Amino acid sequence: MTENRKPTLAVVGATGAVGTVMLGILTERPDVWGEIRLVASARSAGKVLRVRGEDVVVRELTPEVFDGVDVAMFDVPDEVSAVWAPIAAERGAVAVDNSGAFRLDDEVPLVVPEVNGAAARNRPKGIIANPNCTTLTMMDALGALHEQWQLTELVVASYQAASGAGQPGVDRLYDEIAVVAGDRTLGSAAGDTAKVVSEKLGDDSPFPAHLVLNVIPVAGSLKDDGWTSEELKVRNESRKILGIPDLKVSATCVRVPVQTTHSLAVHATFARPVSVTEATAALEAAPSVEVRDDLANGVFPTPATTVGGDPTVVGRIRQALDFPNTLDLFVTGDNLRKGAALNTAQIAELVAAELTA
Amino acid sequence: MTENRKPTLAVVGATGAVGTVMLGILTERPDVWGEIRLVASARSAGKVLRVRGEDVVVRELTPEVFDGVDVAMFDVPDEVSAVWAPIAAERGAVAVDNSGAFRLDDEVPLVVPEVNGAAARNRPKGIIANPNCTTLTMMDALGALHEQWQLTELVVASYQAASGAGQPGVDRLYDEIAVVAGDRTLGSAAGDTAKVVSEKLGDDSPFPAHLVLNVIPVAGSLKDDGWTSEELKVRNESRKILGIPDLKVSATCVRVPVQTTHSLAVHATFARPVSVTEATAALEAAPSVEVRDDLANGVFPTPATTVGGDPTVVGRIRQALDFPNTLDLFVTGDNLRKGAALNTAQIAELVAAELTA
Repeated sequence: MTENRKPTLAVVGATGAVGTVMLGILTERPDVWGEIRLVASARSAGKVLRVRGEDVVVRELTPEVFDGVDVAMFDVPDEVSAVWAPIAAERGAVAVDNSGAFRLDDEVPLVVPEVNGAAARNRPKGIIANPNCTTLTMMDALGALHEQWQLTELVVASYQAASGAGQPGVDRLYDEIAVVAGDRTLGSAAGDTAKVVSEKLGDDSPFPAHLVLNVIPVAGSLKDDGWTSEELKVRNESRKILGIPDLKVSATCVRVPVQTTHSLAVHATFARPVSVTEATAALEAAPSVEVRDDLANGVFPTPATTVGGDPTVVGRIRQALDFPNTLDLFVTGDNLRKGAALNTAQIAELVAAELTA
Repeated sequence: MTENRKPTLAVVGATGAVGTVMLGILTERPDVWGEIRLVASARSAGKVLRVRGEDVVVRELTPEVFDGVDVAMFDVPDEVSAVWAPIAAERGAVAVDNSGAFRLDDEVPLVVPEVNGAAARNRPKGIIANPNCTTLTMMDALGALHEQWQLTELVVASYQAASGAGQPGVDRLYDEIAVVAGDRTLGSAAGDTAKVVSEKLGDDSPFPAHLVLNVIPVAGSLKDDGWTSEELKVRNESRKILGIPDLKVSATCVRVPVQTTHSLAVHATFARPVSVTEATAALEAAPSVEVRDDLANGVFPTPATTVGGDPTVVGRIRQALDFPNTLDLFVTGDNLRKGAALNTAQIAELVAAELTA
């Protein structure tokens, strides 16, 4: 690549929920990329989308679309990434993949720029993986704490938003809210809300139960020994990103009726004693972390106040009363931004900086 | 009391959210009590409520209302119980109190009949306390596991329903759902839902933020070192009920947009090795516990399927992958029934059985 040319970017999966947020993020950072190609399945090809104030026609996903591309971002299902990220890499692009296809591959770095950005340079397959959104929600905060006090154990319960299941998840939540609104008897007898929702909307939902007036202790698919794919991702991806192969992790992943922004109740144990004051200072100093923690004055993080922003917002920072070297905290992060599009854009920018250096 | 007379019951706080559920429970168990007196504040006195198929006029709370009463149930604010439960006891009634006023009093037993029912007999003040609803949600399940494997550590994250804040909490949630329904842009930008809710409903809410399309990591009031009253209740009441004064507990209590039924993600460590198979068998054998745990066939607990029923429903039972002797599970229980009215009724029935024995 010549030094004068800005790198070319391809966005694969441009028409999805994360793709839509990505176009906004690329528009907010207009100076990084030269050409931006938008790519999607044949079904969406030909659509016109707006990025950086310009209309761009969506191209069909083909091998040739990657010719001349420096970085190709993928936000598509695992099986699509598994086939197409290597094709992009073969054609000379660095593939930044937000699917689960390569995250635990030893030859693919799993990167959170603020935590392990240097790992992005070692990519023997030409592929860099972007972590799962639930894991990403807490990585900036935990990375900052781990650096000083060495994380050893993690017990996590999640409050995951509908948009983690993409636009169909958001649509379903809004549809369900619309059909229950006005009926003040719902939610007080088993199955009554399910009946109304099922009668009005049918049972074709991205979720395994209705989400309105409910929480669902299932995200992802069932894996060995009763654990879900989402819960195992939190464990395995946290270990890889933080570089702690023996980190002890238990996660329970739960879907809640929130549009966008995941929340996590985190119980984190460290090798060394840590106080709330020290931890708060470390979090405040961390890039991409914001502390909102003054309960006496009504200051605490919620998904509704975090959504749409870049930082991970942390609050309810408490020293565990009975567990040594342990903090309890509540962490929120926009699952479509830092949890997906933003982190992918940040990784792509690391590569862009490297290519133009 | 003569053997032929059935005991007389007073229900103080009969017109509240828990009181309403209590009248239903008393109607389902019509043979326990002789006279049932309904009691409330002067504002509600004179109202007519239905119990056991009969209309009963609500009486005003006065010392004289307890004359001739054998058991007086209280579901009123802490400060009302603090004054009136001792008055009822002085007049000869056994007070069964669902407030926080006496729960940690050494001379007041804190009782879950299936777990420590015998403790109800030792009541030097004539008062028996009913635990907090969040603690109660998991006590039947944890009691059964503790009996066999000896509980040592507990990390809990809650998903608490609006009705934990009484009827005003339920009304506010329904009101908020009504004002956001139909607007599909809400929930994707910080503060947008809050603005609509505040404009249409004002900010006079039992919750410290809007609950629709949100979760709120605050329940109860702020206590020392950033912990909330609700989180400390989970710790201190679990220790007292289970008789484990040094039980290690960390809880994060979070309100979710569910009408009724609290859910808990529980990470429980025991002194002895325990398998999922053994734990499931113990839970299935426990009174008042139901296991719904077959994720492969879509069987798991949710608040919407547990609400309105008596049992604690447990699922997602997993052996922790990295923590010895530890189970992760998801527990749901109707916070107005087992979490409040039902447990109070069960305690009152223990006393009734004792008085008529």
